[in-house]
Parts: sequence; structure tokens; C-alpha cells
Amino acid sequence: MSKPVVLRLGAIKYAQEAWEKLGQIAQVITVEENSTRADFIKAIKDPKSPIFKTQVIGRTFASVANTGRFDAELAQALPATVAAVCHNGAGYDQIDVAEFAAKHIQVSNVPELVNNATADTHVFLLLGALRNFEHGHRLMLEHKWSSSGGAAGAPIGHDPEGKTVGILGLGGIGRAIVERLKPFGFKRFVYHNRKRLAPELENGCEYVSFDELLKVSDVVSINIPLNAKTRHIVDAKAISQMKDGVVIVNTARGAVIDEKALIAALKSGKVRSAGLDVYEHEPEVPQELLDLPNVCGVPHMGTHTVETVKKMEEFVVKNIESVIKTGKVISVVPELQSEAWVDEQKPL
Amino acid sequence: MSKPVVLRLGAIKYAQEAWEKLGQIAQVITVEENSTRADFIKAIKDPKSPIFKTQVIGRTFASVANTGRFDAELAQALPATVAAVCHNGAGYDQIDVAEFAAKHIQVSNVPELVNNATADTHVFLLLGALRNFEHGHRLMLEHKWSSSGGAAGAPIGHDPEGKTVGILGLGGIGRAIVERLKPFGFKRFVYHNRKRLAPELENGCEYVSFDELLKVSDVVSINIPLNAKTRHIVDAKAISQMKDGVVIVNTARGAVIDEKALIAALKSGKVRSAGLDVYEHEPEVPQELLDLPNVCGVPHMGTHTVETVKKMEEFVVKNIESVIKTGKVISVVPELQSEAWVDEQKPL
Repeated sequence: MSKPVVLRLGAIKYAQEAWEKLGQIAQVITVEENSTRADFIKAIKDPKSPIFKTQVIGRTFASVANTGRFDAELAQALPATVAAVCHNGAGYDQIDVAEFAAKHIQVSNVPELVNNATADTHVFLLLGALRNFEHGHRLMLEHKWSSSGGAAGAPIGHDPEGKTVGILGLGGIGRAIVERLKPFGFKRFVYHNRKRLAPELENGCEYVSFDELLKVSDVVSINIPLNAKTRHIVDAKAISQMKDGVVIVNTARGAVIDEKALIAALKSGKVRSAGLDVYEHEPEVPQELLDLPNVCGVPHMGTHTVETVKKMEEFVVKNIESVIKTGKVISVVPELQSEAWVDEQKPL
Repeated sequence: MSKPVVLRLGAIKYAQEAWEKLGQIAQVITVEENSTRADFIKAIKDPKSPIFKTQVIGRTFASVANTGRFDAELAQALPATVAAVCHNGAGYDQIDVAEFAAKHIQVSNVPELVNNATADTHVFLLLGALRNFEHGHRLMLEHKWSSSGGAAGAPIGHDPEGKTVGILGLGGIGRAIVERLKPFGFKRFVYHNRKRLAPELENGCEYVSFDELLKVSDVVSINIPLNAKTRHIVDAKAISQMKDGVVIVNTARGAVIDEKALIAALKSGKVRSAGLDVYEHEPEVPQELLDLPNVCGVPHMGTHTVETVKKMEEFVVKNIESVIKTGKVISVVPELQSEAWVDEQKPL
């Protein structure tokens, strides 16, 4: 019996050992580094191509550069042999899950493991925005310190004392953020999810409506997945409901914010500052946004650590192994968790 | 009876009300905004000058630009009427306390109130250095994200997990830093002070020697005052004792580090990254240091917040009021706390 075929899309950095071990029970294949979406779709439909026999796909966020989004067209192109797409990342907005579910292809993500590194990034950006550290940093690099006096002339920031943090999306990442922020002395934590959580998951945060969160928060902390319902949930209207001088922090996905509306509000001062790890059209970031000294921004580095990347890569391999041995991924995405066909999968 | 004369050196930002109230019991005078040290020394020695009658001085860190350091020359120049110098800041290395003590002039600083804002800054810089956020930030601003892939090509950072933080100087600021860092998941906190603290002040940190701290720490967190004994305490030799790839964070004073040695170690990679709020010759910062992408730096913004600056300014006024009413400052600096002459001061 030949080994199941696993297609790996995107480079691995630290999980070489896990992939080598996987090689004992699977035939691992890859695509050319510089292949395009057209190449990929052509090859995966071609019975003579090695990837035509793919049974499980392991993919990274960055591999979208080679294949494009995992959308209807790509789902249609996949051979019937494919049992699962194992995505490396918590957010899987690059994958139109329903299109794959229609073909009974499972989709898994990497939840939980990303929480700590993402929350650390969030706290960094929140402090940077609250304190105007980026503004001071720029003025220092521009040699303005000697001529402009204290803090190189940066506008004065604020302390956490007396401030309310509004957690938009209190999941694993949101909870990890709240845990980290507790010793800083904020006055109050409120949150909004579609449904109120059980008290043991609220972690001391008060449940409020979306509108109330916008109204009472000095800091709006965004931690919701991107989907059709959350796209541009923070738009010009939502921003207009916020306090004057609000601070916005986003380590979720860029497109949950209407970036043009955010830029306008950062320019007017309605939004005093923002901490951003993600951008609507990343890796493209508008020059207008880059030019703003009241944006503390990094290029999607939320989980960019040796320890977390290694664990995430290894977890993708665990999901693939699980498909091979049990038929099912370990961490099927939430919207497929109650699908009967998922439970009926057989080992490869 | 005429009111006691209070000389205010340096601008106030938020404590107008407190100073106005002080005006009810004191005659508050100031010097010209653009005056020099020579002007100041000439005026304070001149019996015809209004500041010759000064009894209490309230001063800011930035006022050093007008008066220069409060050194032996300046101490000698002060009239015998001066009872106290009330400094706005936790660090008072701009004042040679012994020279003033010799004339029985008290010196006060602002301890405690600075702890939270300084610790917040420290955590920001620590995360920035540990995670290489500044490097990613620069690459994004340089439009390298599209061409360089994930994290715009920034070197991958590290998680707190498994790491040891070495607190050099576990005082109020050090303890506030430890409190904030606890939820981040570091493995171990060690500290070094000249003397071991009482257990209730150790806050879960293990006491180690200076050499041991250098040897075991993945992150060296500097929180010691600058004085003759601590100047360049982190020099080339100390750095050579540290782990390869150590992260150094300094929100204390620049000159506790030999800045040239630090730059060399940041270039060689011995020190993987640094988070800096303070610089040896600030506001002058060497271009070499500004050019390093492994430095997450801000221009002495440790306490640059509305809330903390206001409280600090108000506390200086409280010290001055206390001198007027009781003869003694509230927060005499530690080295004068056991001086008998301090206790013998009389109300003005």
C-alpha cells in the first residue's frame, strides 16, 4: 500500500523534525517556490501531475502568494482525494470554508497556540499608541530632540489609570490580553461578543452591547476573526460613536477596520492613535498611513517568534497525522464542528 | 511679614492650580526662559537681584538647560537663605547632593509616583526588543514588506516562555515592572541590589550576585539610579559576561551603560537587541545607535503622560509647602535621610 500523499504549501522554518517524522507515514510533496495560482490550479487538475494525488494539504498564510485564496475556484479544482486542508494560523479568512465543506473537505486552523504571542504584540501596540511612543521615536530619529526639548517634542501620552478598555472579541487572544493588562491599572474592562460568555470565561470583563463598547471605551482592542459579518465592522459610523481621542489597537485582521475611515479619523484626531499589526490590503500599506506619527505599527508580526512558529508548524503536522490515522483533523474550524460528515471520515 | 520666596526653575505643564494656591503663602519667582548658567549664577549671587532672596527652589529635569547641573559651583553660589532644592523626578543625578548637604540645603526628589508610567515604558521597550518589532517597523516604512515576505523580512523574535529576566535594581520601578511582566509567562525573575531585600519586598524574585545576574539573564532590565558607583556599571566587561543574544532594557539613566560598548555589542550580535528610553549624552544620541534596527528606542518618555506629570508637578509643590510650613521636605533623598540637621530645620 502506498503512503498517503500530503501536499505542503509554504515554507517551514522550525518543524523540520516533525515533517521528517511525518515522512515515515506519508509521501510529502511540495510545489515550485515561484509557482503561480494558474500553475497550481493547472497541476492539481492534471492526472499526470504528482500533486493530483494529494490527500491532505498543509498550508501557511504566506503560501497565498503562490496559490491565491482558497476560494470556490480552488475548491472546485481540488481532486476528490483531498480530505483536509490544514491551515497554519488562527485566522483562516484566506479559506472560504463553505466551498470546501461542500466537497466534504475538512478545514483546520491553529487556535490557542497563537494566543500568547499575539497578546504580547497587542500589549506592545496598545502601550505604544497610548503613550505616543512612535511619535517620540520618529522625532528622535529625525534629530529633533536637542531642538524640541522634552520627549523630543512628542505629544504627551496617557496612563492606564482611569481608562476603560473595550475588548471587541473576548476569545482566547482577548482573554490573554486582559490577563496581561490587569496589572497596568486600567479602571474597567468591557467586552462585546455576539453572545455573552459564561462567567468563568469573562475573566472579570463586563459584557456590553457593540454600541455601548464604542461609547465607553478609551481603548478599543480588536480581536475578532474576519468574515463577511465583521468586514469593516469598525467603519466611519462606528468610529463616530467612539470617544474623542480614542485609541484603537488591531492585531486581528486589517479588513475588520475600514482603513480609509481610520486614516481620516487619525488625521482629524477623533482617533488619537492606533496600534496596528494588520492592514486591509497587506502587505500593501497606504503611504498616508505610514506617514502618520500617531500610528504604532508593525508588519503582521503577531506570532513572529521562534517558539510560537515552531509550535504552530508542529501542530499543522499533528492535524495531518490525525487525518491519516483517524480520518479527522484535531482542530476543525468552528463552523464545521457540528457537521455530521466530519465525524464520518475514515483513516486514509 | 513677607512671604517666603520660592524660585521655580523650568516650565510647569499641568499643576497651574497647585502653584497658584502656593502663591497664597509664598512669593513665586522665575528666571528668564532663555537665561544661561552664567546669568543664573550671577543673579543668584547678586543682592540686588530678586532671586537672591530665594528660600526654596523647585526645579525640573529640563531646567538643566538654563542652569546647568546643580554641582559644587552652583551650591557655593546659592545664598544662605536657601533651605531646600525640590527636584521634579525620581532620578536626581543632576544634583550633587553632598555639595548642598554641606550647606544644610535639603534635596528632595519624586519617588513612587513615577513607578507606574516608567514601568509601562519599560514593558513596551522590553517587548519591542524581545520581538524585534522596531526592525519590522523600519522595514515596513521602507516598503520592504511586499518584496521581503512575512514580517517584512524582520528577524524572528522570541516569546517570554522559558526566559529569565534579571532586574538590576529592584526598587519601586523594578517591582512595578515585575508585577506587569508576571502574566507574560517568563520562567524566572532574578534581581540584584547592593543588599538583599526583605522577603516581602522581593515580589517573588530570587536574589543573585551581580555576576550571576549577568550570567543567567535572557533579559537584563536596568532600574538603578545613576551615581559615581553605577556609572558605566554595564560596560564591555559586564556585557561579555552576559548570555550571547541577551536583550538589554534601560529606563533608568543612559550613563549606567557604557554606550560605546553597547553599540559595539549590538553590532556584533552579542546583545541581540536593546530597549532604550535613556542615553548617555541625551538629548544627543549617536547616529550609529539611531541607525541600529535592533534598538527599540524612545526619547526619555518614561513619565511623559498627562496623569503622571501632573502628579509629579503637584508633589514638588507639596514638598515646597512642607518646607515653608514645617522646615522639612516630604521626600528627602535617601542619602540625607539620617542627617541630624535635616530634622532640625524650622518653618520658614
